[in-house]
Amino acid sequence: MRIGELSSRTGVPVPTIKYYLREGLLPVGERTSPNQAQYGDAHVRRLKLVRAMLDVGKLSIASTREVLNAIDAPGNTLHGMLGVAQSAVTAKVPAGEDTAWKEADQLVAELIEHRGWRVKPSNPAWLTLTQIVATFKDLGQEDLLDILDEYASAAERLSAAEVAVVAGRSEPDSQVEGAVLGTVLGDALMAALRRLTQEDASHRSFTEAAPTEGAEAAG
Amino acid sequence: MRIGELSSRTGVPVPTIKYYLREGLLPVGERTSPNQAQYGDAHVRRLKLVRAMLDVGKLSIASTREVLNAIDAPGNTLHGMLGVAQSAVTAKVPAGEDTAWKEADQLVAELIEHRGWRVKPSNPAWLTLTQIVATFKDLGQEDLLDILDEYASAAERLSAAEVAVVAGRSEPDSQVEGAVLGTVLGDALMAALRRLTQEDASHRSFTEAAPTEGAEAAG
Repeated sequence: MRIGELSSRTGVPVPTIKYYLREGLLPVGERTSPNQAQYGDAHVRRLKLVRAMLDVGKLSIASTREVLNAIDAPGNTLHGMLGVAQSAVTAKVPAGEDTAWKEADQLVAELIEHRGWRVKPSNPAWLTLTQIVATFKDLGQEDLLDILDEYASAAERLSAAEVAVVAGRSEPDSQVEGAVLGTVLGDALMAALRRLTQEDASHRSFTEAAPTEGAEAAG
Repeated sequence: MRIGELSSRTGVPVPTIKYYLREGLLPVGERTSPNQAQYGDAHVRRLKLVRAMLDVGKLSIASTREVLNAIDAPGNTLHGMLGVAQSAVTAKVPAGEDTAWKEADQLVAELIEHRGWRVKPSNPAWLTLTQIVATFKDLGQEDLLDILDEYASAAERLSAAEVAVVAGRSEPDSQVEGAVLGTVLGDALMAALRRLTQEDASHRSFTEAAPTEGAEAAG
């Protein structure tokens, strides 16, 4: 198909497709004349993946390119590819030096050991988590850290379920896409679900009078 | 204390504090002479909260101001304030019109009904969730939606635990701060934990040979 059909099949405007081609997010088509190229189903699929990462996952162009390069690198294992996808979507946090930081780092290390997670210290989320723990402590929100273990078991169950779905797929390409989308869109999915359940929990806890039939009906 | 001590007690440089004052993120100090103002413990606390929202929660200056205005508005209920905090940290997604969008919206509505969540259709996360579901379907990742219910129960448990912690606090100011930080930093916390558990789950699933003692030791 020509670029116009690629545009109508994906809903992505032609100038935007050309921009993605220049940025290396989409492989060039097969040239059929000096001014024309042909695109195939693989381009449709890749274009949708690019849009998902940019629009829904809120990744930058540079991070999207990084993930796509990892997807396309020959011989990259699924485990290795997941690491690249994770790095691309995790903000880099500089390690702190003070006592508060060291205490937070210790708490994170203990959580990981107690949970038996086999993770490399180079996983960028280690530093992110340390920063969050240090912030909660600094702001006197230690009681919110009491439920850290509850967060940890929720994350454990979700990751196991996700990886099981992806591992159950027969096509390697589809496994790779699933791992990337699970990482990139899974955060957004969980955040959206937390917004909804927070509203529900807050509603139940703070706006309800003693539970009478009448109050319930007005809720 | 003077602005210099406020800076040394919080680690925030003086020019940055002045910037926050101009942007209305920090209330002005009590003027003691034409060129000097005095700051108190409330300023220390507020400054730390501002830094947490900007640096750890990755909120914009405008969103941070929106949340702070809600915190400071007299007569705002905790439930109402949580709604403002949620709006400020949730990207606005335009509603779609096509069949795929309507199907996704239907699926989200069914999930909410089946779960018994009392949420307003105006909760911005409804649209975000619809967009994510539509994207998963469009990319042929329906099998990842099979675990949507697992995500939903995880979110339910976390929100209930968070709200219980916050509701258990005796000071209203501290309840408000907890609700805001739980929303703003909770996303980042969950994302970081998912990165770690994903690495662990991927390690277990994709890199391990048949479980022999030797392979285990090399893991």
